[in-house]
Amino acid sequence: MARRAVVLVSGGLDSATTLALAIRQGFEAYALTVDYGQRHRIELERARELAAALGAAVHRVARVDLGSFGGSALTDPGIEVPRRDLDGPPGEGIPPTYVPARNTVLLAVALAWAEVLGAEDLFVGVNAVDFSGYPDCRPAFLEAFERLAHLATRAGVEGRARFRVHAPLLAMSKAEIVRLAVDLAVEVGRTVSCYDPSTAGQPCGRCDACVLRAKGFREAGIPDPALPSSGPI
Amino acid sequence: MARRAVVLVSGGLDSATTLALAIRQGFEAYALTVDYGQRHRIELERARELAAALGAAVHRVARVDLGSFGGSALTDPGIEVPRRDLDGPPGEGIPPTYVPARNTVLLAVALAWAEVLGAEDLFVGVNAVDFSGYPDCRPAFLEAFERLAHLATRAGVEGRARFRVHAPLLAMSKAEIVRLAVDLAVEVGRTVSCYDPSTAGQPCGRCDACVLRAKGFREAGIPDPALPSSGPI
Repeated sequence: MARRAVVLVSGGLDSATTLALAIRQGFEAYALTVDYGQRHRIELERARELAAALGAAVHRVARVDLGSFGGSALTDPGIEVPRRDLDGPPGEGIPPTYVPARNTVLLAVALAWAEVLGAEDLFVGVNAVDFSGYPDCRPAFLEAFERLAHLATRAGVEGRARFRVHAPLLAMSKAEIVRLAVDLAVEVGRTVSCYDPSTAGQPCGRCDACVLRAKGFREAGIPDPALPSSGPI
Repeated sequence: MARRAVVLVSGGLDSATTLALAIRQGFEAYALTVDYGQRHRIELERARELAAALGAAVHRVARVDLGSFGGSALTDPGIEVPRRDLDGPPGEGIPPTYVPARNTVLLAVALAWAEVLGAEDLFVGVNAVDFSGYPDCRPAFLEAFERLAHLATRAGVEGRARFRVHAPLLAMSKAEIVRLAVDLAVEVGRTVSCYDPSTAGQPCGRCDACVLRAKGFREAGIPDPALPSSGPI
């Protein structure tokens, strides 16, 4: 029987690639999308489509009420998503698109499901190279979560599970992720990275996530099929 | 200005006492109840009443979809809540009322709110003496969460906050908690500890939580005002 893994899937390029990789590695994938009140609601729909297309065994959307806390441009319409030019300088420090404690919450919910499923492998598409400087995308955070998972659960304490947080994209550049996605036959045109897309899913082109994505595709020498004009940038 | 703290409040005796203690210590208390799909829904109502009565600055209920995962007698009606006699032996090992990764999820959500509020103090009413053996009620778990909180957040990484998880009841017996609750003028009759109360909030009297509570009141020499006959047991 294939080993089960819970894979966090947001509808973006990185998590779709992570899901494809987990399945390629032989895991039976339980795809988990967390609806935390993100304003880019199209993510949830794309996550469902991608999970089905990639062959996840199950896809589930779990709602977690973070939006009502506010404090992030991704959940609070009163906070603007910063825009910049493709070759403009990145913002300084941790940007307002940081969602307080988001990855802690995401991994906690993934852990809860994993324990019920008898899975000990969690996959998350975080990246610490071409990323926005979020604290909860760094190796030290992931290691601390793994340690916590062991102490927090019946399965860990009873020695029946040794939880592992897999972050296979952690040390990759965005260009490497783009190439890997294409190699794994991820429908990259269906992934949505933008922090503030149109309701139809059209990317804004100027938020941090759009700029990182565009640079990745450019560096990989591959046109981004999610863009209207799919020629090279 | 009083320092803000996020206090997890379930509607039970322990968390109400913890809230009273945090307020007594001078914190401005942001009471957080997590609706994770617990079958004892009366908790949510009691939590609201207790937070108001004790003087929390704000009370909020955040929904987190753990119930749909199942795997616990507290969220899955298909799993029975174990019953025992007041002086009967406790069950062995971690009981089926354990909710996978629950306290990790609760603290993660509390951390998210704390970071938005600019608070660095989290209060949780866990107890490791007269408790049911849950892994996520132990000091090692709380320490690991504190470490994680530091790495997971902008406030932690930027050195603006040093998150602390306060578990003031951790080393107390249930009798000590009962006495403390009475000292702090907690309306203990309004707290509900039972895992499977009637819809009106009447405790079953035979689940682990009821038995621990009854023993605590008996040992403290105080009648439990939540019971219909409020004479000494």
